[in-house]
Amino acid sequence: MGKVPFDVNNTKDKKAEFSLVQVKGTWKRKLGKKASDGRVDRVSAAKIYESITDKGISWTVVSPIVFTYKVTETQNILDPSNDTLLLGHINDSQQLEDIKKSNKPLKRFLVIDQEVQKIYGPRLTEFLEANKVQYKILPLPTTEENKSMEMALEIVKEVNNFSLDRRTEPIIAIGGGVCLDIVGLAASLYRRRTPYIRVPTTLLAYIDASVGAKTGVNFANCKNKLGAYIPPTASFLDLSFIQTVPRRHISNGLAEMLKMALMKHRGLFELLEKHGHMLLDTKFQAVNNVYGCNNLQAASQATRTAIMTMLEELAPNLWEDDLNRLVDFGHLISPALEMEVLPSLLHGEAVNIDMSYMVYVSQERGLLTEEEMQRIIRCMVGLELPVWHEACTMELIQRSLQDRLKHSGGLYRMPLPVGLGQAEIFNDTSYEVLHRAYEKWCDELGMSSKHL
Amino acid sequence: MGKVPFDVNNTKDKKAEFSLVQVKGTWKRKLGKKASDGRVDRVSAAKIYESITDKGISWTVVSPIVFTYKVTETQNILDPSNDTLLLGHINDSQQLEDIKKSNKPLKRFLVIDQEVQKIYGPRLTEFLEANKVQYKILPLPTTEENKSMEMALEIVKEVNNFSLDRRTEPIIAIGGGVCLDIVGLAASLYRRRTPYIRVPTTLLAYIDASVGAKTGVNFANCKNKLGAYIPPTASFLDLSFIQTVPRRHISNGLAEMLKMALMKHRGLFELLEKHGHMLLDTKFQAVNNVYGCNNLQAASQATRTAIMTMLEELAPNLWEDDLNRLVDFGHLISPALEMEVLPSLLHGEAVNIDMSYMVYVSQERGLLTEEEMQRIIRCMVGLELPVWHEACTMELIQRSLQDRLKHSGGLYRMPLPVGLGQAEIFNDTSYEVLHRAYEKWCDELGMSSKHL
Ligand SMILES: NC(=O)c1ccc[n+]([C@@H]2O[C@H](COP(=O)([O-])OP(=O)(O)OC[C@H]3O[C@@H](n4cnc5c(N)ncnc54)[C@H](O)[C@@H]3O)[C@@H](O)[C@H]2O)c1
Ligand SMILES: NC(=O)c1ccc[n+]([C@@H]2O[C@H](COP(=O)([O-])OP(=O)(O)OC[C@H]3O[C@@H](n4cnc5c(N)ncnc54)[C@H](O)[C@@H]3O)[C@@H](O)[C@H]2O)c1
Repeated sequence: MGKVPFDVNNTKDKKAEFSLVQVKGTWKRKLGKKASDGRVDRVSAAKIYESITDKGISWTVVSPIVFTYKVTETQNILDPSNDTLLLGHINDSQQLEDIKKSNKPLKRFLVIDQEVQKIYGPRLTEFLEANKVQYKILPLPTTEENKSMEMALEIVKEVNNFSLDRRTEPIIAIGGGVCLDIVGLAASLYRRRTPYIRVPTTLLAYIDASVGAKTGVNFANCKNKLGAYIPPTASFLDLSFIQTVPRRHISNGLAEMLKMALMKHRGLFELLEKHGHMLLDTKFQAVNNVYGCNNLQAASQATRTAIMTMLEELAPNLWEDDLNRLVDFGHLISPALEMEVLPSLLHGEAVNIDMSYMVYVSQERGLLTEEEMQRIIRCMVGLELPVWHEACTMELIQRSLQDRLKHSGGLYRMPLPVGLGQAEIFNDTSYEVLHRAYEKWCDELGMSSKHL
Repeated sequence: MGKVPFDVNNTKDKKAEFSLVQVKGTWKRKLGKKASDGRVDRVSAAKIYESITDKGISWTVVSPIVFTYKVTETQNILDPSNDTLLLGHINDSQQLEDIKKSNKPLKRFLVIDQEVQKIYGPRLTEFLEANKVQYKILPLPTTEENKSMEMALEIVKEVNNFSLDRRTEPIIAIGGGVCLDIVGLAASLYRRRTPYIRVPTTLLAYIDASVGAKTGVNFANCKNKLGAYIPPTASFLDLSFIQTVPRRHISNGLAEMLKMALMKHRGLFELLEKHGHMLLDTKFQAVNNVYGCNNLQAASQATRTAIMTMLEELAPNLWEDDLNRLVDFGHLISPALEMEVLPSLLHGEAVNIDMSYMVYVSQERGLLTEEEMQRIIRCMVGLELPVWHEACTMELIQRSLQDRLKHSGGLYRMPLPVGLGQAEIFNDTSYEVLHRAYEKWCDELGMSSKHL
């Protein structure tokens, strides 16, 4: 498995490379790289290598699977005249036309966060009725505490009873990151993979959980310990859901946005520094207030940049085979912190506390100036994010980094900001640096401190 | 998702193609197909397409993941001097050398079928002790009735307690197809994918479950309703396990072998026709008896051909995106039959009853001569496989084919033998043909029939 294909020159044994060609519905292996011939219907991208030793035969299969998915902005997704939710995932224009012409009612299974259902349920039902969809809506209390395999199986059971056609009837998930993650896993398991669609309704889910391939549930008190890397067929993004998200949860989403800014986009950092508080006030909506009409432009630019930078990092590393990942910034210490104090810290809050500490580490290492560091911390405070937590002890930090070592092939692979909007990955942060940064961090930002 | 990448020319909207290049650890998108430049560290095989419409931006991610796995024959896998079980999955010779040189004990988590443990447990323990492995063996009653998510989660829980390094310490499954399927799913879920190794101990698992990417458990009374397509890192095949497999279970494995023979290898069919009964008697072992020394050669040739033909069909279609699959022969009606009469029919037995009926369908359609059909049925009987079952009613056949339609994009995609060792896929078998074949099948092979 992994991105690096099998090295055929690696052993001294007799080894043969076979291409695979299909003739009249039957696949046949053909010796050698080139496999074209008049009677061949198809040539596969897969290969089989055969090696014969004194112990017997060994075959190595190398088979690429191409994942394709869409992340699409839309407006008024629940407006009955907008067909994005029902048909936006279809790329083939002929297929689209056929469906539109046919009289067969569409069939959809939808899972929705129970709280979101309270607000948007009536409009969703109206939308489905107006489009004559045969549907089942399953509202669930998709909270972090309920993010479990049990809930994923509950979904699968209902999907099975609904009896959908897994080729043409994707499961639709509407909610925050928890809902999208659980439904994604349920869909990935059902019949070994059933297409699903993500409709994020929180800012965090909008710019993060909707963008990649990861699904998951918590297990044995560990965050996302079980899951899969199966992207949705499509994610449909409608900013208007954000208007009802509680203010604290907007800050929560801004943390992941700030992560991308600090790692690779100075422009996004400056936007958040300048307009972050306004985005929090206006909840990414167009409003006629003191901020004028510029706020929607800022909202759009901020979300697009966050998503684009995230996609840049995820697309080449969809299955996380490469362990050097900038998107891990803020995620080295936060998982343990988040689970430790559950449910008191939100995901993005825990991430921000981790980032805040890491910014101190960067400064301690001389990668950030004191002033750059202060600007970042001030920006975090402006986004109303916690920058310190008493449960984030030196012991927890060390334990988390030990765990990191174990799961990252023996290296820390610590993403650290190097100036504003740029980052590198470091393996050599000493205990002394970690400790001095920790002391300074507690001194300046800790509860007893007068700094803020 | 799927093998067919996104068609970029499909819409009239403004569309841009971006390559992804890595510079100093940061991925950046670059307009256009070519993306080489002096300062670039890496170019990804993934692409991002951006399209701007009046509704907003839409991004399409196309990202190939390469799956690589090994299927390796070995002998005396539990001999302490054979390191295949512990190190045979490692392809990198440098890494192998490093491990062999290092004094660090290897750590392995093993799940083994409880019955297999009774026979081979002492030798397995001895093997692990002799190789100074830090290990945990988890014996489980991995029967078809227990093939459930509950058991997969039980495994995950133990794996989590054992605390292995998912990069270097693959989970090892030793047992029949049920054990390999459950452990494969557990490993695929744990931390979104943990490498695992398959060691088949039944003939069915040896030639079938070890060869592909499928994992699964039963759910809501349906066979393998939940699962994943994640191949093992390696499958290690040792024929000597087969010597203790009950005779009926050898027949069971021969059914899947016969499937590959009928679909695409006349030589294998003739081998089974001629030597099948002997293989059953000798359990694929070298024995000094009436059969002489040729039996091992037949055993080796039969298993290798079955595996090679299976690999040819699976490698180009690892995730079963192509719905036209010869390997589905015998699997259109058998899943419902198998679950209906559970536990009275084994998997291969149900498959054989399905194949036996389909052979009648082929003959009814004029694709097989009466004589070819009789040869096939005689071969099945020689392999001691059931060729008819009272629970396989016309109603069950029709229900299964309806279900097939639903899950195969509206077409039957029925693989049928066309002569011996050749097959094609048909979508147009009429009810009349199905019914006439059914009548003849019952007449000639049904319980009351005197045919056999
Ligand atoms: N798959 C990924 O790549 C990925 C990425 C980031 C985070 N996540 C996961 O996402 C989860 C966090 O997501 P989250 O912050 O969205 O949490 P969440 O799903 O728990 O939602 C937060 C709260 O907001 C409510 N809510 C949702 N939409 C609303 C709306 N429009 N109006 C009013 N209330 C609304 C919910 O009921 C909930 O109480 C974590 O479990 C994390 O692991 C996954
Ligand atoms: N993943 C795949 O591609 C794939 C392919 C084919 C079948 N399968 C699955 O495999 C399962 C059937 O596999 P199976 O036939 O191996 O059944 P099984 O795993 O139930 O094993 C059959 C019996 O043999 C016993 N046994 C196993 N090895 C033995 C040995 N060496 N000596 C003595 N007894 C032994 C077991 O305890 C069991 O009682 C089905 O669930 C089927 O869905 C999966």
